[in-house]
Amino acid sequence: MHARPERNPAIARLNDHFLKLSAGYLFPEIGRRVGAFIEANPGAAERIIKLGIGDVTEPLPAACREAMKSAVDDLGEKASFRGYGPEQGYGFLREKIAEHDFQSRGCDVSADEIFVSDGSKCDCANILDVLGSGNRVAVTDPVYPVYVDTNVMAGNTGPAAHGGGYEGITYLPLTKENGFEAEIPTQRLDVVYLCFPNNPTGAVASRKHLAAWVAYAKEHDALLLFDAAYEAFVQDDALPRSIYEIPGADTCAIEFRSFSKNAGFTGTRCAFTVCPRGVMATDADGRKHALHGLWNRRQSTKFNGVSYVVQRAAEAVYSPEGREQCRGLVAFYMENARILREKLSAAGIAVHGGVHAPYLWLETPGDASSWDYFDRLLHGAHVVGTPGAGFGRAGEGYFRLSAFNSRENVEEAIRRIETMTAA
Amino acid sequence: MHARPERNPAIARLNDHFLKLSAGYLFPEIGRRVGAFIEANPGAAERIIKLGIGDVTEPLPAACREAMKSAVDDLGEKASFRGYGPEQGYGFLREKIAEHDFQSRGCDVSADEIFVSDGSKCDCANILDVLGSGNRVAVTDPVYPVYVDTNVMAGNTGPAAHGGGYEGITYLPLTKENGFEAEIPTQRLDVVYLCFPNNPTGAVASRKHLAAWVAYAKEHDALLLFDAAYEAFVQDDALPRSIYEIPGADTCAIEFRSFSKNAGFTGTRCAFTVCPRGVMATDADGRKHALHGLWNRRQSTKFNGVSYVVQRAAEAVYSPEGREQCRGLVAFYMENARILREKLSAAGIAVHGGVHAPYLWLETPGDASSWDYFDRLLHGAHVVGTPGAGFGRAGEGYFRLSAFNSRENVEEAIRRIETMTAA
Repeated sequence: MHARPERNPAIARLNDHFLKLSAGYLFPEIGRRVGAFIEANPGAAERIIKLGIGDVTEPLPAACREAMKSAVDDLGEKASFRGYGPEQGYGFLREKIAEHDFQSRGCDVSADEIFVSDGSKCDCANILDVLGSGNRVAVTDPVYPVYVDTNVMAGNTGPAAHGGGYEGITYLPLTKENGFEAEIPTQRLDVVYLCFPNNPTGAVASRKHLAAWVAYAKEHDALLLFDAAYEAFVQDDALPRSIYEIPGADTCAIEFRSFSKNAGFTGTRCAFTVCPRGVMATDADGRKHALHGLWNRRQSTKFNGVSYVVQRAAEAVYSPEGREQCRGLVAFYMENARILREKLSAAGIAVHGGVHAPYLWLETPGDASSWDYFDRLLHGAHVVGTPGAGFGRAGEGYFRLSAFNSRENVEEAIRRIETMTAA
Repeated sequence: MHARPERNPAIARLNDHFLKLSAGYLFPEIGRRVGAFIEANPGAAERIIKLGIGDVTEPLPAACREAMKSAVDDLGEKASFRGYGPEQGYGFLREKIAEHDFQSRGCDVSADEIFVSDGSKCDCANILDVLGSGNRVAVTDPVYPVYVDTNVMAGNTGPAAHGGGYEGITYLPLTKENGFEAEIPTQRLDVVYLCFPNNPTGAVASRKHLAAWVAYAKEHDALLLFDAAYEAFVQDDALPRSIYEIPGADTCAIEFRSFSKNAGFTGTRCAFTVCPRGVMATDADGRKHALHGLWNRRQSTKFNGVSYVVQRAAEAVYSPEGREQCRGLVAFYMENARILREKLSAAGIAVHGGVHAPYLWLETPGDASSWDYFDRLLHGAHVVGTPGAGFGRAGEGYFRLSAFNSRENVEEAIRRIETMTAA
């Protein structure tokens, strides 16, 4: 028998690491505050404009909708019916991804290094399944909370620290002083999460900055987990959209991509992870293994692939019509971002981001804390944003606004913020 | 800083538990053997009839297809567009599930105890995220490999044992001698996986048997993980379809359900987990916590809900037309099962299951091992089944055939097996 600790009383044990999770996940907490406000001000409910969660609002591209209907028809005929598909995704989609998103930009990524999934949130979380315990994990601060919370759940951290964050995680501050590019660390780290264009700051990484990270990873045998969910918003073709545009990244980086933001798939659900065959990690004896094989095994065992209909919708993103329609979506949201940026600046609010990303990162006016400013905007302008402190200690004093909304709502929101700011 | 073990060289560490996984996952291994056979016998490829993997073959019900197309149209209009949905699933679906699958059968399950997901395989695997280490885990033998492999990955087992299985897991044999109902253990177990109607044996549990398990769980504070993916195939209304038909189960059992087999969703992807609010587990200090809250947190943090279009398809399963069409699908496959059962028996092969389940569990003729019989059927009849030994040691000497195929293929397969058996 495998040795087990003795204990009493006999009862199924839960994962104690869950109990370290402090407070609620950021977005449920925002939901609670908005709900309480609406309960106290029932008339206000329909006036509220949400520029908080990064959820798209424009219709799904026609090319994707047509592909889905055609796929539904496939399921109605025995000859074209599809049951279980490959857990890694259909070849028709993996090949288009490899060609259009990577090979066309000079990245040596092949279809079998692409794993189609139902969401980047899932992939960012699930990747920890193949990593061991004892890794020194770093995130930027502010940070997308999922990176941190999933490390807490996996037991990779200590308890919540006083003043925010968790013991055992290294936080790399992104501030206006460093131009929202984290300083390359001098200490050894094993796993580093990076997200560019960045959520929440809207910053974009220069080629030089990503090259410095790849050099760091290669020097220290670290693994980069690169979240490129917002790459479609990069406006300058000279800026990198994928970590694999940096030579050597294919031996030290896993990249997460999504159709959520470029093609409006937040409710349709499709994403993918790129795990190049050259990315290695070590076992307890110091032997190196390719993470590709482990991730393939993880996905084959714990996942059953994405809906056929949804994969056909994602494939249509790469058709000439689909690409055109997605470009239109991105342009629409980026025009929202431009309006918000210019009018907020004119109103005297310091704004970062919003140029190569659908997020604006405001400095909260005066000495307002970011949650205070959240409440002020909610009560004073009926506008919901996201307090910077919800993304980490270094987010205090900042506030995120998203460009995902109708033009009408964006213009109305900015009018109200202008009025409130002038008052 | 959180204490960490010192180690050298510095490099990201992988999850060593993955390296314990012995051989391939069963179905990839079958795929390899079939591929090798086809390579050696190119002409045989189109003659092969697959009664191996439990994948459906009939078209998706019309009610589901219509609902999907209508949902696609919703995504084409701003007013009806859906972005991120609730991670737990839409209320419209959770309420129909609660009403039709549970309340209508006297089970006190409410909509907020239902968590919609993209697959039962995922749910069965992910549930381990909320359970701690050190639980004494039991599975039946033979067993759906995912229960075991995910426990290996989570570090809940020792290494692979000689002769099959893993150290640290308790295997409860299902054999013809015990009527394929595992003996209720006398030792203490913390987590017990049960699957009825059973995959792979096709056995169904009596109310008395499930009541004995619930009594065991309550006496020992154990947690039952009840996989009811095949409940739609139960033909006798007196037999339980849900563990919650047993009084007290709502304090000790989590149930997994799927639309894969009753509604042909293997490629469309929708399932759900029932986690009643009364199901508890203990933390390290012996305090009890409801797993409902932990599972909710897990799903909110690591999952982003099922595609809106797919949830509308699942909702249609509960419409009058959808229910009628699903009944038709089940009846179709069960007629396949009846044909297989009767003809195999007539050919002198001892057959179990196939009455309340789409699986038949054959005793391999003569002294053939189950992998030998696999090769014999593949080479001699061009029929692919699943060797019992692939499901565990106690599966040796048995062989699984699935009733999921066209009538034509089932009849052709049985003709070939008859010829081969008579030869």
